[in-house]
Amino acid sequence: MAVTVDLNCDMGESFGEYTAGNDAEAAAYVTSSNIACGAHASDPTVMRRTIRLCGDHNVMVGAHPGYPDLQGFGRRRIEMDHEEIIDSVIYQVGALKGFADHAGVPLQHVKLHGALYHYALGQEKLFVDIAENLRKAFGDIILLTMGTAASIELRSICRKSGARIALEAFPDRVYDDDGALLSRSRPGAVIKDAGVIAQRAISMVKRKGTESLNGRWIDLAIDTICIHGDNRESILAAPMIRRRAEREGIEVRPLGSFV
Amino acid sequence: MAVTVDLNCDMGESFGEYTAGNDAEAAAYVTSSNIACGAHASDPTVMRRTIRLCGDHNVMVGAHPGYPDLQGFGRRRIEMDHEEIIDSVIYQVGALKGFADHAGVPLQHVKLHGALYHYALGQEKLFVDIAENLRKAFGDIILLTMGTAASIELRSICRKSGARIALEAFPDRVYDDDGALLSRSRPGAVIKDAGVIAQRAISMVKRKGTESLNGRWIDLAIDTICIHGDNRESILAAPMIRRRAEREGIEVRPLGSFV
Amino acid sequence: MAVTVDLNCDMGESFGEYTAGNDAEAAAYVTSSNIACGAHASDPTVMRRTIRLCGDHNVMVGAHPGYPDLQGFGRRRIEMDHEEIIDSVIYQVGALKGFADHAGVPLQHVKLHGALYHYALGQEKLFVDIAENLRKAFGDIILLTMGTAASIELRSICRKSGARIALEAFPDRVYDDDGALLSRSRPGAVIKDAGVIAQRAISMVKRKGTESLNGRWIDLAIDTICIHGDNRESILAAPMIRRRAEREGIEVRPLGSFV
Amino acid sequence: MAVTVDLNCDMGESFGEYTAGNDAEAAAYVTSSNIACGAHASDPTVMRRTIRLCGDHNVMVGAHPGYPDLQGFGRRRIEMDHEEIIDSVIYQVGALKGFADHAGVPLQHVKLHGALYHYALGQEKLFVDIAENLRKAFGDIILLTMGTAASIELRSICRKSGARIALEAFPDRVYDDDGALLSRSRPGAVIKDAGVIAQRAISMVKRKGTESLNGRWIDLAIDTICIHGDNRESILAAPMIRRRAEREGIEVRPLGSFV
Repeated sequence: MAVTVDLNCDMGESFGEYTAGNDAEAAAYVTSSNIACGAHASDPTVMRRTIRLCGDHNVMVGAHPGYPDLQGFGRRRIEMDHEEIIDSVIYQVGALKGFADHAGVPLQHVKLHGALYHYALGQEKLFVDIAENLRKAFGDIILLTMGTAASIELRSICRKSGARIALEAFPDRVYDDDGALLSRSRPGAVIKDAGVIAQRAISMVKRKGTESLNGRWIDLAIDTICIHGDNRESILAAPMIRRRAEREGIEVRPLGSFV
Repeated sequence: MAVTVDLNCDMGESFGEYTAGNDAEAAAYVTSSNIACGAHASDPTVMRRTIRLCGDHNVMVGAHPGYPDLQGFGRRRIEMDHEEIIDSVIYQVGALKGFADHAGVPLQHVKLHGALYHYALGQEKLFVDIAENLRKAFGDIILLTMGTAASIELRSICRKSGARIALEAFPDRVYDDDGALLSRSRPGAVIKDAGVIAQRAISMVKRKGTESLNGRWIDLAIDTICIHGDNRESILAAPMIRRRAEREGIEVRPLGSFV
Repeated sequence: MAVTVDLNCDMGESFGEYTAGNDAEAAAYVTSSNIACGAHASDPTVMRRTIRLCGDHNVMVGAHPGYPDLQGFGRRRIEMDHEEIIDSVIYQVGALKGFADHAGVPLQHVKLHGALYHYALGQEKLFVDIAENLRKAFGDIILLTMGTAASIELRSICRKSGARIALEAFPDRVYDDDGALLSRSRPGAVIKDAGVIAQRAISMVKRKGTESLNGRWIDLAIDTICIHGDNRESILAAPMIRRRAEREGIEVRPLGSFV
Repeated sequence: MAVTVDLNCDMGESFGEYTAGNDAEAAAYVTSSNIACGAHASDPTVMRRTIRLCGDHNVMVGAHPGYPDLQGFGRRRIEMDHEEIIDSVIYQVGALKGFADHAGVPLQHVKLHGALYHYALGQEKLFVDIAENLRKAFGDIILLTMGTAASIELRSICRKSGARIALEAFPDRVYDDDGALLSRSRPGAVIKDAGVIAQRAISMVKRKGTESLNGRWIDLAIDTICIHGDNRESILAAPMIRRRAEREGIEVRPLGSFV
């Protein structure tokens, strides 16, 4: 049976006069984009331009909502109640969808950002509520999250109500023994060698898992590989991953076509 | 021939702990709402709740985008270039549409707010561009503006590309000789008597115009009457307008059904 | 020995077009104000006007910095690191001091707001660091906090480096058995009777403590009584407290004069 | 008689995760810094760190307040009334002064930023009011502005009330015939050759003027030379200016020591 995988990358993280990321480079190799929505990064003009860039490269468009905290880049948790979080997510995804509709491209998926991504992963009820409310507002849209044991469980729960979940792996990050990502503040937590990242990506997909920091086996369900736009080596790994995937008979396609 | 008119009111102008307006009262009498979109007022939770309030009262939902200036309540012009303005409008309307879709109600119209409303009125190219970009992003949506000579002209231009424009009158405001509203800072510019406001509203609709400050006749094309949520007498006038309209054979209906 | 107490009240919580609180009323009776600094509430114009109001009523000026979260009114914790918190506090207090200097009035004290007030209370190292950094930036300034056992300890630590701490009591709030305030979400947590509030205030000062929800005795060290500007009954209690204090021989004076 | 001049540079324009400018490089050569205050750029942590950087290089600290518009980087005029502008300036300068006091360094001057700099230059009453209110709030502080005919006049007016004004020249910008800077959008408006910039700087100081775009002579009063941190060639010109100044017997010193 053919193996298929998507490559996703955060994009549109510039703001006003400030630029961030390497969107043009990433757009040449990835199949799906997670576009910031003006809360933790981005602004309306950046959003419109990023969607056009994606359109030019046949990269599918996803929304990347985060905590409303531009100064903290969405990396600091805010103790919002769950209703406030869901409302903020709908707001941000709706705003991005306006630009997708304006450009005539579909909105393929939603990936939560930063502290919100990790918080929701640990809050089953919140995660399922987000999935269901996104479905209510935006129809048959995919919600992307980490492909570890906990979220495989979440996926089953979400599927009952018809919500589609896609699972991702992080080849440029070291996994802890419990399947979480090792904190960026730990030395060696972010892998800075494009060749190693590419090799790990292919291995994760083929072996459906990876070894943790201490050599424990971590099962992974993988629909998509995360390319970090702010890790230069991760971006350089993207074309390598595509070439190796081709050699290995792994098809690289936007996740909306197979999840 | 039957005369038909809509009653519109700004809503959803609260923000976080701060409350503004009299939405619950207005919702009982108006047919269309202009809901702030988080730039000059409102926040995601206020937007969701306001749409539900409108749904409960069969009030049609419209978006009310303004300059991104919460402190100035959108009343101070910002020298954004036209591209930035259009992008900001799409962003805000998209965000509100997310909540409308979530609630399963249509997005009927867009009305620009405050300084942006007045600036766009004087910039034909910008106004037409906004109308066309809204149409591109949100389909067959109505753009609401002042019903004076200048905008009747604008309406004709917009119609050529298929954009729908609705025109409004302000019975609680005195018109200057050129058809503009007399500045709020001028004494007597805002009428503070519900009976007078209601009488002016009916007269404007029947006579298709009104007399200016200095007694000059101002032709008005009127699809909708603006009820100001922050002018208590204007809200009190709403039920009076409905009763008098009924007596006069004027039908009060949401503008989407007849524009 | 004469007993002396200050009455403090949060002020300047309006923002742009939005108004909050009852500053004019409170200013007639309290001796110290905690003025919001533009992060969780207020704006530069509100700050300048509030300081003038305080000057007109001989109310001493204090800064009331909070989390930079206007939408959440500073009531949601943000996971800022301690350095970020201290920097934000210096920023806000500096901004308010600009207006105090402009008006020619001294900056008497600093009181943290909302979620930051409670978070700092539980983080000894952070609290002491805030006190010392405020001293470094603003000289001999008083930091106000809760007058329970934990903060009496904090006061001793701070005094070693010369920082002045003032302790406050909340007569309109029910204390839990551990000396913390009962959460506002609990029924009965906020007392809504001016007479009862006034009586509790005087009793707390005289008896140096109060009974908790379950009748446990809570020792309190009290330099100042908090009047809540958003609790109408708390404001109404202020003149009652002053009259009763006079009868009881308790002197009501700004805390800077005796702490 | 010895000629003395200051070199000033905008600094501290980073924000959260976003970095801007080349502060470390500029700090090695300039004598005065204009530090953004959190309205058009910067945040509390950036402000504290920038002041420390200045302290390490004996660069004098100035405040650089702008329109409260992070997305527009203070380059878009906002139609704030004059009271609002003055309040915003006091707020921002006060916040920066908090950090200067914390670091134990004096606040030497204020330079308005971007659209506010240019707007105030054309509004004599506003400019004088800003100077006087800054003096009221922050004592003997210098306000920096363009050294053309209009502002030489402004300087005289300000001096009557004791306010100190410093005048600056822009060697990397072409002057229009009326003494204004040619708009950045005009080709050639920004000079991109360090050698030319340095030569123009020295020539401007020695000849007390420069030739405009069309060869008209523009008189300039010059206390300080503006180094643009976002024009790489302007930064490279800074050490050249210092070397040539030395050869020419022009002393380079912080403006507070001679204005």
